[in-house]
Amino acid sequence: MKKIGILGSTGSVGTQTLEVIDRQAEKYKVLYLTAKSNAELLCKQAKKYNVEAICILDKSKYSYCKNKLSDIKIFIGRKGLLKIASINKIDLMINALVGGSGMEPTVNAIRSGVDIALSNKESMVMAGSYINKLCKNNNVNIFPMDSEHSAIWQCLKGEQYNQINKLILTGSGGPFRTKSIKDFRKIKKEDALKHPNWEMGRKITIDSATMMNKGLEVIEAYWLFNIPIEKIEIIIHPQSIIHSLVEFVDGSIKAQLGVPDMKIPIQYALSYPNHDNVSWESLNLSKIKTLTFESPDLEKFPCIRLAYEAINKGGSYPVVLNIANDIAVELFLNNNIKFINIPEIIEIAMKEHSYIQNPDLNDIEELTKQTKNFISYKIEKDFR
Amino acid sequence: MKKIGILGSTGSVGTQTLEVIDRQAEKYKVLYLTAKSNAELLCKQAKKYNVEAICILDKSKYSYCKNKLSDIKIFIGRKGLLKIASINKIDLMINALVGGSGMEPTVNAIRSGVDIALSNKESMVMAGSYINKLCKNNNVNIFPMDSEHSAIWQCLKGEQYNQINKLILTGSGGPFRTKSIKDFRKIKKEDALKHPNWEMGRKITIDSATMMNKGLEVIEAYWLFNIPIEKIEIIIHPQSIIHSLVEFVDGSIKAQLGVPDMKIPIQYALSYPNHDNVSWESLNLSKIKTLTFESPDLEKFPCIRLAYEAINKGGSYPVVLNIANDIAVELFLNNNIKFINIPEIIEIAMKEHSYIQNPDLNDIEELTKQTKNFISYKIEKDFR
Repeated sequence: MKKIGILGSTGSVGTQTLEVIDRQAEKYKVLYLTAKSNAELLCKQAKKYNVEAICILDKSKYSYCKNKLSDIKIFIGRKGLLKIASINKIDLMINALVGGSGMEPTVNAIRSGVDIALSNKESMVMAGSYINKLCKNNNVNIFPMDSEHSAIWQCLKGEQYNQINKLILTGSGGPFRTKSIKDFRKIKKEDALKHPNWEMGRKITIDSATMMNKGLEVIEAYWLFNIPIEKIEIIIHPQSIIHSLVEFVDGSIKAQLGVPDMKIPIQYALSYPNHDNVSWESLNLSKIKTLTFESPDLEKFPCIRLAYEAINKGGSYPVVLNIANDIAVELFLNNNIKFINIPEIIEIAMKEHSYIQNPDLNDIEELTKQTKNFISYKIEKDFR
Repeated sequence: MKKIGILGSTGSVGTQTLEVIDRQAEKYKVLYLTAKSNAELLCKQAKKYNVEAICILDKSKYSYCKNKLSDIKIFIGRKGLLKIASINKIDLMINALVGGSGMEPTVNAIRSGVDIALSNKESMVMAGSYINKLCKNNNVNIFPMDSEHSAIWQCLKGEQYNQINKLILTGSGGPFRTKSIKDFRKIKKEDALKHPNWEMGRKITIDSATMMNKGLEVIEAYWLFNIPIEKIEIIIHPQSIIHSLVEFVDGSIKAQLGVPDMKIPIQYALSYPNHDNVSWESLNLSKIKTLTFESPDLEKFPCIRLAYEAINKGGSYPVVLNIANDIAVELFLNNNIKFINIPEIIEIAMKEHSYIQNPDLNDIEELTKQTKNFISYKIEKDFR
């Protein structure tokens, strides 16, 4: 039995991970769960899987949990999360946290020598270099759970990384692919929250609408697969059937395909290196009939350009890119700024920050604070 | 240096194999070449690569070759071909022969312990069971050169065969995909010889037009990958960009893609398990824009149905299917029968033959003779 912990078990990836586990309950033992504020669902999950401990981030929900779960250990707050992330009595930690605050838990799990199934792409975006070194020193593996990185990972099975010519990340283009750029000013939150193909959390859905999601994925791929940035491309594929491709030096291309269902990459991260006999919905190409492809529009989606710029400049740039994006998306979701302000805020934050060449974890923490302050006090008001 | 022999070096796959070798001349030493009747090209090749021996099938061309190549050993006729196919001083034998007569050379190479890059799909169609046993006993590998089987082979790299749910062979649908079935009576040789995507020899081009090519590929895949026939499907994909797909038991699908250029699968069979840094034309999906898929039309293309029927009935059926197809295609190319007669002749030949459960090589030889005679004397005249 594989012993499992799930950071962020009540979110979209967390709940889908538990659905996957339910299909093969005999193979997995869920021992730890954490949630931000959905105490009700967290307690239900904790009982169902009879876990050893949980953590609820929102301290005001502690007494609710305590009442529901008399015999299960309950951690609270950020400190509790980091404690659970450091537990070494499991085989695999699922990091399904959202945003930059998911990075430190990744680091803790690696330090404890626990393999990670990673959905929190911000971990690699902010601290890819540091995390890669840490994985090497602690002999820890990171299994990607994103559909795109899972696709690339699957295509690379049995292959030599030095025979890669190109990684090609596919993206649906989000809800505004065909929208005219002059209408971007009028985009409302409700429009941005409607993703055409994937069922995902709110933050990543907005990231898909700005296409920052694809930018973050490029940076994540850069660190996960150690491929020069000029060999990582984005192609728009509105049907989300081909989840990504790898071109080798002889011109041969491999792709991974499937219905747009996160449960397939989640399943693979759990069962790797095996494909387990769990029949998720099967792809029927003759029913789908047509797959289309186009180049991304960098004018409409400046976030892609900003992500490439960040990784090209390196050092602290991707950290600031990611923090600024986290904040800008939250401001947008709270109706404080417009959709088109998201890339504008990120660009200013990147430009104005004090560059650090090799940020360590303290630097990243400091950059996080500074970027938050900078946006709150210096520029947020200009956009309200 | 990899020592190479090429059976059928003046044909489409043979000449493309030499093009591939020319790109990395330092890696390969061509030692043996054979051709059916193109003595001029064969002699040119023999000089260029300074081979040890050649074989010209057409005995009347012997003196031409002898004049051109004073210091190279020259074999002639079928016996000469089989002798060259038995040479064990090479690392890889390319079997680029066309039709059922390419099967015995495959067997000879395996008996000599030489790995085979196989373009002659008829070998596996006629003697798959026998060849598989022989490979096992002689510790010999077969590397597929067909684009479809190369695609599947590449997708299966690093994977467990028992985790396969389905092999999906793609086919362009040939030149008559959109033609109305009522116009099939009027199909001329010239129309059938125009393949929309691939540059191939005449026999395989007709096989593409009848879609028997796809049927033979299903049978070849059955033996190459040891997958139950009900797990092998055909899908029509007119652009010939996705060369085939593998679905695993968890619903994840891998595909291999590329421009429709035989040199890529040929290259891979030569450089396996590596992708060599030889930049064949690169695929640009955003330029291609659209990939389409549809189910095959079994009414228009009864050859597909016949192929499934043959492998389902097993034993001597695929042998007769293949021999009858070889003969019918030749009759069509010589303007002796109509296009629609090809499947009709094959179906009668299959129905009327005396079934053998486990044909050995002698049985296959006998079946070949009987089927040839049956078609020549019993049914050919009904179709003229």
